Amino acid sequence: MPLNSGQYSIAKWISILHRNGQSYVTKKLKYYNIGSGQYIILLNLYSNDGISQEKLSDYLKIDKGSIAKSIKKLEDEAYIKRIIDSDDKRAYKVFLTQKALDTMPIVQKAIESWEEVIVADLTECERQMIESLLNKIAHKAYSIHKCE
Amino acid sequence: MPLNSGQYSIAKWISILHRNGQSYVTKKLKYYNIGSGQYIILLNLYSNDGISQEKLSDYLKIDKGSIAKSIKKLEDEAYIKRIIDSDDKRAYKVFLTQKALDTMPIVQKAIESWEEVIVADLTECERQMIESLLNKIAHKAYSIHKCE
Repeated sequence: MPLNSGQYSIAKWISILHRNGQSYVTKKLKYYNIGSGQYIILLNLYSNDGISQEKLSDYLKIDKGSIAKSIKKLEDEAYIKRIIDSDDKRAYKVFLTQKALDTMPIVQKAIESWEEVIVADLTECERQMIESLLNKIAHKAYSIHKCE
Repeated sequence: MPLNSGQYSIAKWISILHRNGQSYVTKKLKYYNIGSGQYIILLNLYSNDGISQEKLSDYLKIDKGSIAKSIKKLEDEAYIKRIIDSDDKRAYKVFLTQKALDTMPIVQKAIESWEEVIVADLTECERQMIESLLNKIAHKAYSIHKCE
């Protein structure tokens, strides 16, 4: 049966862009021993410090095994600390350390650098258009998961 | 130091959309024992059957360790087979099995379903616009990696 990849080209470009972006940012952060995709966890904790490991997995849509592995590495590198949840002794809450807070501007700069490069050939109008449309479909994506 | 997340909102939406999409598609494929992100490898092999494991990692921008782990699982589930490269006895070429080829329309349908849902509220003009702009920035992203 022939496959027509044109049928899902938006999903394809998003996947390609994400993987290229993650690779670019991870390379920029290599010196800081922040491994592939781990900066996404740091960024999320910056807005949700003290979230449980399970909620982090659910919120980021990254499976629990991968989250546990990344959190272990970030803890080993002293970017995060885990504290047992006083309400549920089997669960951990995850917090950024001062080292992580000090590193956040570098993480932010690496992502900004990536974004600047990919939008370099767009007009200001096109840049605003893609940002607005991505915002719209991302919110739609969230609403689906809420209804599952 | 305050962080202004608005500075890299395109990268942020792309990352959120990719993770939500991967989670959605992986759930749809759960019955087929195709784990998180593994369908991306299958799709890529469909266009590049017989590619080396190393090239697959480079092309997909997924680190070698993660690719090796996913390929092992796909091999255990009989979706792919690895054959020693006759030109380099230390390297493997990766091929889809008949089982994988038979499953591809299901993988395709899961991705199409995801894309249909996220673009449901867009007009036809907006859909074409976002596809065209994503195509443009994805090609820009590729050109950066080529120059590194």
